[in-house]
Amino acid sequence: MTRIAVCAPSTPIARGDAEQVVVLAAGEFPAVELVIHPQCFAVEGHFAGSDAQRLDALVECANDPSFDAVWFARGGYGACRIAEEALPRFGPAARTKTWLGYSDAGYLLGAFYRERIGRSVHAPMLGCIRRKGGVDAVRRVLGYVSGDPSGVEPTLDHHPTVAFNLTTLAMLCGTPLMPGLAGHVVMVEEVSEYLYAVDRLFFHLTAHLGGIAGLRLGRVSDVPQNDRPFGATPEQIARYWCDRRAIPFLGSADIGHDAANRIVPFGVAERAQGQ
Amino acid sequence: MTRIAVCAPSTPIARGDAEQVVVLAAGEFPAVELVIHPQCFAVEGHFAGSDAQRLDALVECANDPSFDAVWFARGGYGACRIAEEALPRFGPAARTKTWLGYSDAGYLLGAFYRERIGRSVHAPMLGCIRRKGGVDAVRRVLGYVSGDPSGVEPTLDHHPTVAFNLTTLAMLCGTPLMPGLAGHVVMVEEVSEYLYAVDRLFFHLTAHLGGIAGLRLGRVSDVPQNDRPFGATPEQIARYWCDRRAIPFLGSADIGHDAANRIVPFGVAERAQGQ
Repeated sequence: MTRIAVCAPSTPIARGDAEQVVVLAAGEFPAVELVIHPQCFAVEGHFAGSDAQRLDALVECANDPSFDAVWFARGGYGACRIAEEALPRFGPAARTKTWLGYSDAGYLLGAFYRERIGRSVHAPMLGCIRRKGGVDAVRRVLGYVSGDPSGVEPTLDHHPTVAFNLTTLAMLCGTPLMPGLAGHVVMVEEVSEYLYAVDRLFFHLTAHLGGIAGLRLGRVSDVPQNDRPFGATPEQIARYWCDRRAIPFLGSADIGHDAANRIVPFGVAERAQGQ
Repeated sequence: MTRIAVCAPSTPIARGDAEQVVVLAAGEFPAVELVIHPQCFAVEGHFAGSDAQRLDALVECANDPSFDAVWFARGGYGACRIAEEALPRFGPAARTKTWLGYSDAGYLLGAFYRERIGRSVHAPMLGCIRRKGGVDAVRRVLGYVSGDPSGVEPTLDHHPTVAFNLTTLAMLCGTPLMPGLAGHVVMVEEVSEYLYAVDRLFFHLTAHLGGIAGLRLGRVSDVPQNDRPFGATPEQIARYWCDRRAIPFLGSADIGHDAANRIVPFGVAERAQGQ
């Protein structure tokens, strides 16, 4: 039995969404037990409860030795406000956890990867059940934790790899949460940003990625219409800044803010290690 | 006679706007001559001409010894793509220039301040003529270059000071354009960003501002309506992150994306030096 705790370091989820995923897991993944922390439904302003509530729930899930994994419920902003405080409160049980999430959860995945605490994994979240095709996204995660590697991003190789939302990784740079990424393949995806803002984020981010093995671009989706065309595609933007910063551009990655978002275990993927 | 070159390192301006400002300057500031570089009206995708066009115009204005100042026409994104390339092309005449602008022009102001090239000044731009009350904003700049200090931000003291758009400064952090700001009063303003994004930018920025004398908050305007209230005001956000990062929060600054935007000469203000 794989026991997974769900908490919400950023924004809340709806009870109906949680129930749907619990039913799905019980029906299709009998070796998985999902435990939804009640903090997932707390609301304080933008967040799933106050900083203290979100921090306490995260620490409780991390330190409970009966859980194998902690699945972040949803993104939307907020995890960066509690990540630094969580680290000194983590006990030995946190070091064996698998952490699953993406988007705003990247602040935690990055910090835990930096500190070599457990296993950070870029993966769809419970809240993705709301997306078109979201049932498949949830199945991909529950399958992965059950030992099915078919949902893993297909380009993973012998390089250690990380995957982030572009804004999240750009905001991590230079903070106490930023992992060292020399030698890594870095995958980034973005959603709902103007292309000029994507270009600006690449200006910033690539200045911090010296020594990486290369960059792969996930999907840049739901780009708002600006008053004029930007004049370059997301791939052209990524290639331009990689070229300026002497970073190899490696092509695309099958990640993004959508139901097709594939799984990227941080570090060297086990299947690559084993083969 | 003070001769001012106007070029557009970011986005283009309309000919009518340029003509209106030239007429205003000729009528009210006879000791000022404005020379509008034709590149200000070039268009390529998002930008006022290609990177090469914008770079060439900037370098031409900077290296022309007949100009006392270079006034950036408008913000809107693009200056960070040409700032690094401009520096090695600057000759001795660039070192005596006053550089005037704000918002996206902050990439240049920051880079020139870092390299101690001339005098960077946060100030309204020609394109501000379009704003409500924009004539007063333009008068403030033309008055300043004519020797009238009444448009200068009123809180300036003996500390060296800089002023930036919040996003611009956050994106500068860790790049080759970022000036050292230890001991400085840092003023930031923002426009058209969700409050969660403002909070995220402060998370990032304050991690890079160790050792500054303190932070002052300009106006955070045109905040888009989100699907739920954030739960904190811009000042509360600034105080929160300053407190976490041991940065003194010094109060408000009279700057912003509006016609009231005051002038902030980077470094120690002359009037404070002289008094």
